[in-house]
Amino acid sequence: MSTIVSVDTTDIRFPTSLQLDGSDAMNPDPDYSAAYLVIGTDAGDGLEGHAFVFTIGRGNDVQVAALDALRGHLVGQDVEALLGDMGATWRLLAHDSQLRWLGPEKGVMHMAIGAAIDALWDLKAKRAGLPLWQLLARMTPQELVDTVDFRYLSDAITRDEALGILSAAAPGRAAREAELLAVGYPAYTTSPGWLGYSDEKLDRLCREAVADGFPQIKLKVGGDLADDRRRLAIARAAVGPGFPIAIDANQRWDVADAIAWVSALAEFDVAWIEEPTSPDDILGHAAIARGVAPIRVATGEHVANRVVFKQLLQAGGMAVMQIDATRVGGVNENIANLLLAAKFGVPVCPHAGGVGLCEAVQHLSMFDYVAVSGTMDGRMIEFVDHLHEHFATPVVVERGRYLAPVAPGAGTEMRAASIEEYSWRGAHVGEVPA
Amino acid sequence: MSTIVSVDTTDIRFPTSLQLDGSDAMNPDPDYSAAYLVIGTDAGDGLEGHAFVFTIGRGNDVQVAALDALRGHLVGQDVEALLGDMGATWRLLAHDSQLRWLGPEKGVMHMAIGAAIDALWDLKAKRAGLPLWQLLARMTPQELVDTVDFRYLSDAITRDEALGILSAAAPGRAAREAELLAVGYPAYTTSPGWLGYSDEKLDRLCREAVADGFPQIKLKVGGDLADDRRRLAIARAAVGPGFPIAIDANQRWDVADAIAWVSALAEFDVAWIEEPTSPDDILGHAAIARGVAPIRVATGEHVANRVVFKQLLQAGGMAVMQIDATRVGGVNENIANLLLAAKFGVPVCPHAGGVGLCEAVQHLSMFDYVAVSGTMDGRMIEFVDHLHEHFATPVVVERGRYLAPVAPGAGTEMRAASIEEYSWRGAHVGEVPA
Repeated sequence: MSTIVSVDTTDIRFPTSLQLDGSDAMNPDPDYSAAYLVIGTDAGDGLEGHAFVFTIGRGNDVQVAALDALRGHLVGQDVEALLGDMGATWRLLAHDSQLRWLGPEKGVMHMAIGAAIDALWDLKAKRAGLPLWQLLARMTPQELVDTVDFRYLSDAITRDEALGILSAAAPGRAAREAELLAVGYPAYTTSPGWLGYSDEKLDRLCREAVADGFPQIKLKVGGDLADDRRRLAIARAAVGPGFPIAIDANQRWDVADAIAWVSALAEFDVAWIEEPTSPDDILGHAAIARGVAPIRVATGEHVANRVVFKQLLQAGGMAVMQIDATRVGGVNENIANLLLAAKFGVPVCPHAGGVGLCEAVQHLSMFDYVAVSGTMDGRMIEFVDHLHEHFATPVVVERGRYLAPVAPGAGTEMRAASIEEYSWRGAHVGEVPA
Repeated sequence: MSTIVSVDTTDIRFPTSLQLDGSDAMNPDPDYSAAYLVIGTDAGDGLEGHAFVFTIGRGNDVQVAALDALRGHLVGQDVEALLGDMGATWRLLAHDSQLRWLGPEKGVMHMAIGAAIDALWDLKAKRAGLPLWQLLARMTPQELVDTVDFRYLSDAITRDEALGILSAAAPGRAAREAELLAVGYPAYTTSPGWLGYSDEKLDRLCREAVADGFPQIKLKVGGDLADDRRRLAIARAAVGPGFPIAIDANQRWDVADAIAWVSALAEFDVAWIEEPTSPDDILGHAAIARGVAPIRVATGEHVANRVVFKQLLQAGGMAVMQIDATRVGGVNENIANLLLAAKFGVPVCPHAGGVGLCEAVQHLSMFDYVAVSGTMDGRMIEFVDHLHEHFATPVVVERGRYLAPVAPGAGTEMRAASIEEYSWRGAHVGEVPA
């Protein structure tokens, strides 16, 4: 038996705005950041649980304060009890009535709870000596549904239906696990498409993406229609006809604007339109989906919780589900999201990039393939080749595919040197605050 | 010309859980709290802007951290410029792309932005020598729409439509202002209905509510159906047939449960069912509204922003809009909510109680009467007789009506002695932290 003895938090910020990496129509100058959490125990095994919330700069200190607010829920707890019933552990945090008032189940407090949950999953996977995707994919259907909070979901999926989905996928698990280890999981790249890049850089990166074997690229749009048409023409010429190009508006439009703007880009053969409007606007997404069909609407990186995902599916507002590793209440809530997607027959193509989102979310897609949807058809994980060197077990993407991670854990552990170098106290270490 | 020179924050907590005041099906033991903000200037006029976010205890420190994160946006700014264009001021805070990532427009960060906005409205009203409701009610329709962010609203209400609503209400403003000053605004009371109270106390408080002249009472439900039926029978007997009794489930149910439970209470003649399920579940509210008709569905105290309010109206999921003074992005966003309600012909019956919510939200309802909806029909403001003594200008409720406040400001200033006595640093002043 062991006990949690420490919850250490760090405000980590990378000065990415200097290069315009990550620039889009709504986020012109992000400083990619992580509100970082390490859970320590007295087990004496040298294992810690690491996780984080991805933010884009200012406010990362608020996110750290929310992680700090969970210390009292964690320190002194029996580790085996927490890890042995992750569903109960989720409820311990997410159902705290006083903390819940701050959302409920959305925003800073909910993301902090997600990071605490994910740190525990990281620790559980390390103890099991397995990468998270394999740990999850070897749990029984019963154990998996026990991790999910079905509150507010039962009009769309019941516990029994979820059990049915997982049980139906059980027979092929071993073969699919072996396949993943052999060939990996499809990736697509957003690296060419940031708004801050020159046309020359766009053209060059599009060609490199095809040469590198990626099956799809994605371009940011929504700043200026004439620019978007010029950039899409450059991209289309670079990748050739038929090659999938997705576009991403980062919530830039109202409903009518979205339909008009996307229609004006349709001639460039658009694979999907991502985040056309507010992530809260379920009915708006549904109206846009009707208005731009057959172009598909994709969303999810800012969807606050399973209840909003449920409705996007119910309303027909989301043809591609883009789960995010650190936006919702951790692995548990993303298992709920994967089950919803399977129920509605919608492919999951996770949001990634940022800081460590690729490292984290690959485990969820691979788990989905082995134990939930059972297919990679139409599925791929976003990939941005950025900041991976700061992680203890960085993703490996080759020929347009994520290789299945084999290191124990959830992939969410940063290198100690990077934590130290990019820790922020109003300035980076060694800098003078402005 | 003057400049903001200070943004002071305080973590204020009242130990209300000791009395079970405020206990409901989801919030068994709230400690009513306020993350409190004071904006100071160098104008030398002795005026400050005060505002707060209401929380229920744990996590109030996180909310204070979010207020602190706005200091850099405020200190050093030209006060007249901020107060002279509150629409631009709202965008300065709410459109900060890095902070926006933490929501967007929801949860801890959005509520903090709302408090900063409200503190500026408090200062603006004090400078004008007017209570906020009169300040707002004397702005031109053009000035009022300029405070509103119509992003994501245009499929439901355009700027021109909003101008039309405000212009149509302009002729009767002076008469309605005089009427408010003469007779006040209707209140209803939730004081009898907390789950933690005994049957004897419930009966006594119901009778007192009628004797005090309140036109409606509200009971918390959702803990146990048999208890709810017994308590509703007691309340109905106490108030007599035909007297409106609303019920409030505080998000307790899934969709099917809500319909079944409310149907089992219908015989007690229920005025509305409030928060039957997740505040994010727009489609769920619409399904419940269809399932329990003609009982009306009310919601709003946990609705994160104008985009969710818009959809609840579009979907027919909300027959009574319950705005909250500190849940959304401040006065500006609540003006948007009032305009949406007017467009859809839905009455606004604000959520209040908590800490200072009555003091704050009365200004919005009175402004609505004078300058937006132009009617009090079916409108009333929740009232809980609790913690008012801590405010510099506490509400005055007589014979079931809020008397129109006449003191300059937004009503959001607490007494200095109360701030000091209930400030929290892991314990109250003079107590030893646990």
